[in-house]
Order: sequence, then C-alpha cells, then structure tokens
Amino acid sequence: MGRTSDARERLVAAALELFSERAYSSVGVAEISARAGVQKGSFYYFFPSKEALALAVTDEHWAWQRADWARILGGDGTALERLRSLFNATAKYQADALQGTGSVTGCLFGNLALEVSSINEPMRTRLQEIFDEQVAMIESHLAAAASAGELDLADVHTIAKSIVAQLEGLILFAKLFNDPAQLDSMWANSLRLLGLKERSAA
Amino acid sequence: MGRTSDARERLVAAALELFSERAYSSVGVAEISARAGVQKGSFYYFFPSKEALALAVTDEHWAWQRADWARILGGDGTALERLRSLFNATAKYQADALQGTGSVTGCLFGNLALEVSSINEPMRTRLQEIFDEQVAMIESHLAAAASAGELDLADVHTIAKSIVAQLEGLILFAKLFNDPAQLDSMWANSLRLLGLKERSAA
Repeated sequence: MGRTSDARERLVAAALELFSERAYSSVGVAEISARAGVQKGSFYYFFPSKEALALAVTDEHWAWQRADWARILGGDGTALERLRSLFNATAKYQADALQGTGSVTGCLFGNLALEVSSINEPMRTRLQEIFDEQVAMIESHLAAAASAGELDLADVHTIAKSIVAQLEGLILFAKLFNDPAQLDSMWANSLRLLGLKERSAA
Repeated sequence: MGRTSDARERLVAAALELFSERAYSSVGVAEISARAGVQKGSFYYFFPSKEALALAVTDEHWAWQRADWARILGGDGTALERLRSLFNATAKYQADALQGTGSVTGCLFGNLALEVSSINEPMRTRLQEIFDEQVAMIESHLAAAASAGELDLADVHTIAKSIVAQLEGLILFAKLFNDPAQLDSMWANSLRLLGLKERSAA
C-alpha cells in the first residue's frame, strides 16, 4: 500500500487531518494508518505510539505555522498592517478548511491543549513552548512597532499574550459555530488591546 | 451500591468530574458508573447514552454557573467592580480545582466545544446557546454600566464577545500551564477592551 519512502510523511499528514477533524482520543492508530495508506504493522516502524506521532504532527505543524507567521510579520507595510495580515491569514486558513472539509478545524494547538495537556506531559510541555513562542513573536513585533513610533505600549508582553488569547478565544467560537466570520472582530479587538482606535489604522 | 434515589445526581456529578479531568472521548460509561457508585446496568435507566448524560452535565453546570454569574453581576458596588468580581471568581474556581485535584480543569464548555462540537450536533447547539447567553449577560451588564455613565461603548455586543473570548483564551492558558495565575491579566485586558485605563478603576 503506497511507497514506503514517503510513508512517514503520509502518516503525519493523515494524523494532522484526523486530529483536526475529530478529538485526538477518538482517533486510533488503525484509522490513521488506513487514511495514510500505510499498513498498521508499518506504523510502529516509524512511531512507537500514537503519542509519539502526535508530537511529530505538532512539531511539523508549528514549524510550518511559525514560518508562515515569520513571513507575514516580516512582509511589506507598517507593523500594524502586517499584524492585521496575520489575522486575515488565520481567518482564511479556517475558511479554506470549511470549504475543503465542511468544518472549521480550529487551532490544532488549542484543541490539543484542552484535550490532552492534562494527561500527556510531553505534549503539555511542547504546547507550552509553542504558545510561548507565539507570544514572543507577537511581542517582538509589537516592540519593533513601538520603536518605530507606531505604538506606545506600557507592557508589551502582557499585551502580546492578550492578543494570542483573543485569537484562541475567537478561533474557539469559529470552531463551535463552524463559522470563520467569528474572527471578523479580531482586528478591532486587537486595536483596543493595543490602546488604539479603529479609525486610526483603517 | 449507593441509594437509587440520588443515583442520577451522582452520575451527573461523577461525569462532571471526569469530563473536567480528562477528554470526553476517553471517559466511558463504565468508568462514570464506577465513580458514581452506580451499577453500569442502572446507568441506562437514567440516560440512554453517554451523549445524553453529557448534555445533562452541560445543562446542570451552566444552570449553576449562570446563577453564579447573575449573583455576582447583580451584587454590590459599581458595574465595573462587579465585572472584576466575576473574573476573580473564575480565577478562584480554577485555583480551587488545582488545590482539590492537582489540575486546573479549565472551562467545561470550552473543553467540550473544541473536542466534541464537530462530531456531536446536539452538544454543539447547546454550547452555542451557552456562549451566546454568556455574551448576552456581559453585554447587558455593560449596557447598564453605559447607561449609568460608567462606560462609553460604541459596540457593546462586539466588546462583550471580545471579553468572553479573552476569558476563554486565558482559561486555555491556565489549563495548559496548570496555573490559575494565567488569569491575572484578565482585568487589565478587559479594561483595554473597554477603552479604559487601568488606573481609572484601580
């Protein structure tokens, strides 16, 4: 069933799909292997357990998302415009998932944080690192904007964290209501968290 | 095993504990029955399925939390002071869970929203109603504060939703880091979302 050469990649891709579609706990090795077109016996050649695969999926998805965030935050325009582009890209990701699968998949890291962190310490540690990195990326972006005179912030770290928390909260609503438009207020809410009026950056 | 008279209540209480401790998908009828001290055969006298029990747990937990929110938001002090008391009570609930069980349990509704809403339509509908009610409670509280001259808000509904999203995002961090102190910034963040400076309500 399929080429062995890319079986590991196919297992990771299948698991990302399945963990996005349904609860981690409800997805088993047999189903992941079937979706990947890999024999179940071969699964254990690549991963000792579903937990190990989930860590690999988490790492690869964050490597992709971190690169995407860095590209967008390092793009053209003012710092505020680039921040807004990041939120637009997040909404588009959810809208694309809805169009492709019929479901807003939400944030893989948020889904796993609520479902798995209390029973899986290695995953908890990894997700803590990822959210810390997300906050650090936003924080350094805001600090650069402050240096450029675009912002005047008293506590950049807390504000960066409040923006990531706001994004996770709205993505939760987007998943629950199966509606990417739940993210439409992200920009206005972020401007408030940044102490700016909406019109000043419209 | 135990009195039949309160077996239903004990099943609901046991399920609330287990769904708070672990993923919904990883908890079965046998374990819930054992925790409740109810024979598994008797479970089906009260509930046709785990899904039906989960809806009952969700309803009863929201009935309790809604009454608690109403009591706090209708208490003494200014509208802003009462809103702050609500966030303090939320942080205390998580701190009590940590002290009692060793784990920050997070928000039952947020946990179920991310894990179950994509595979269980009755639960999705119920959780949508609950989050809509939470937003409506905050919205009407903010509208009353605006009428009393404590606030000047352009879009009360969006701001109420941003506050509930912020709370869910920070509760996600509290669960992930197993640390109720993640909620410490909730008040400062809410003041920003309300367009107020921290010192004005300190």
